[in-house]
Amino acid sequence: MRALTLTDALRFQTAYPEPKRQVDEALIRVRLAGVCNTDLELVKGYMGFSGVLGHEFVGEVIEGDSAWVGQRVVGEINVACGACDLCHRGMPTQCRYRTTLGIDRKDGVIADRVALVHRNLHVVPDRVSDRQAVFVEPLAAAFQVLESIHLSPHDRVVVVGAGKLGLLCAQVVKLSGADLSVVVRREAPAKLLNQWGIRAVSIDELPAKRTQVVIDCTGNQEGLVASMNLVEPRGTIVLKSTYATHPTINLSLIAVDEIRVIGSRCGSFPSAIRALEAGLIDVESMIDAVYPLDRALEAMQRAAQPGALKVLLEV
Amino acid sequence: MRALTLTDALRFQTAYPEPKRQVDEALIRVRLAGVCNTDLELVKGYMGFSGVLGHEFVGEVIEGDSAWVGQRVVGEINVACGACDLCHRGMPTQCRYRTTLGIDRKDGVIADRVALVHRNLHVVPDRVSDRQAVFVEPLAAAFQVLESIHLSPHDRVVVVGAGKLGLLCAQVVKLSGADLSVVVRREAPAKLLNQWGIRAVSIDELPAKRTQVVIDCTGNQEGLVASMNLVEPRGTIVLKSTYATHPTINLSLIAVDEIRVIGSRCGSFPSAIRALEAGLIDVESMIDAVYPLDRALEAMQRAAQPGALKVLLEV
Repeated sequence: MRALTLTDALRFQTAYPEPKRQVDEALIRVRLAGVCNTDLELVKGYMGFSGVLGHEFVGEVIEGDSAWVGQRVVGEINVACGACDLCHRGMPTQCRYRTTLGIDRKDGVIADRVALVHRNLHVVPDRVSDRQAVFVEPLAAAFQVLESIHLSPHDRVVVVGAGKLGLLCAQVVKLSGADLSVVVRREAPAKLLNQWGIRAVSIDELPAKRTQVVIDCTGNQEGLVASMNLVEPRGTIVLKSTYATHPTINLSLIAVDEIRVIGSRCGSFPSAIRALEAGLIDVESMIDAVYPLDRALEAMQRAAQPGALKVLLEV
Repeated sequence: MRALTLTDALRFQTAYPEPKRQVDEALIRVRLAGVCNTDLELVKGYMGFSGVLGHEFVGEVIEGDSAWVGQRVVGEINVACGACDLCHRGMPTQCRYRTTLGIDRKDGVIADRVALVHRNLHVVPDRVSDRQAVFVEPLAAAFQVLESIHLSPHDRVVVVGAGKLGLLCAQVVKLSGADLSVVVRREAPAKLLNQWGIRAVSIDELPAKRTQVVIDCTGNQEGLVASMNLVEPRGTIVLKSTYATHPTINLSLIAVDEIRVIGSRCGSFPSAIRALEAGLIDVESMIDAVYPLDRALEAMQRAAQPGALKVLLEV
């Protein structure tokens, strides 16, 4: 089958072996896949991944349990063992022995077909289009902010970084009724935010130490420094991104100002599906370009361009 | 009066000006003062403080509101404005315009007398001795761990660092019923912990990523790295210390493992007083040496020695 693979280099292959479906897995024909910043990090060597890239998808089950065959599905990316202490304590996304679709020891979705355990699948309702459904995984990650912390409708909230994840986080936070600003450096995301009725600001417009919750979606030292400057005493910084470097951080300030720094990762697929079905989140305006699978390498180049929004691959 | 002062250097003065008592302040004759690690940091230049050193004390009110005169008291160190948003939201210890006793623009307690606002004072019950009462401030900081996070009696908790604050945090955590270990490098604190029925361990004895709550009382990069290794996914690291350097920290791990890093500072004096009155906390075994005020410089040298426990000054 066709697949975008990463070994020593990124390659588009036309005769990659078909996925070997295990008994508990469904075989899925991919319809649409999305490129995530994590994919770009993987190409740079993060996690030392080798295999088929990609973890955002919508597809159709073509083999597996009869109840699933023919269903249009999205899939959670963490394949949990179901047996470790963290699985038993209700944290399968943090399973100690998990593999992760297209990220860690498990072939991903930028390919004709992918195998994934049935328990990770969610049916896509008819009212949610393929172009919406392919955003379920990153939208679920945005909803994880609301699982990680309690947002009060009184809170002043700032999202730092208006990339793909920042824009999704902003849309989710907007639903809380909180007083939301998004720190933006480019015109395109500022326009989108305005369209959604969300305040887009430059970092200089915001006062120091006056924000209850800062959500850092930048993944860089500069964004983290900005977040530390914005957060008020006893406030919270949510880290949504992985950082390519190891930034230094003023830990004394965390202690003295009693700041909370909270990591937040994969989230609830059902919440994301419900929000899309209810028309609460606009993802289609976030599509930058759609490429056919055969042009996957070109799509990756486009996704790597500064300011690029969501790049999709049609299979 | 006599006072231990810090300007360009640490000095013991015998003719330092008497405190100028403001209308809302009590004048207190200091009976006993304690040396804290923060005092040692201040001497090294932290906060750029200049004035009388010291913030841990027990004393007797000799001038002020009649209801207070003659009372044996301890005092909270943050002098809040009472008018800013953080004061109004019930966070006077985080007041935006606070001065801090012996730390920030307010003469401290290693002196014959000190002035402090009445609202910061707490009466010491008869059953609490001077030698116990002088620990109320750091013990309140240890109790702040329980204000900063919810400790479950199911939790595995590790205190990293068995200095003065670490030993107090350990004694407070022990009261929660949690499964507690304290990482120790010296024999003296290990003996104390054993005496209290608390497990003292070396860092190699603890498994990686299996601790729900790690309390870092080390204030150094090594302790922070140890804490990051110990904490399990979705676990919590409480930062109790200020750090002289800006350590680097693996922020991607915080995001991926969804770790919480929570700063924690000054705490509840009434809780600390109640615990001492009930005999729940042993502070007297933590006294390293008691010096007369005239030998304050010598006392500071002793306090700076590695492994030194609480050094007190009798006034």
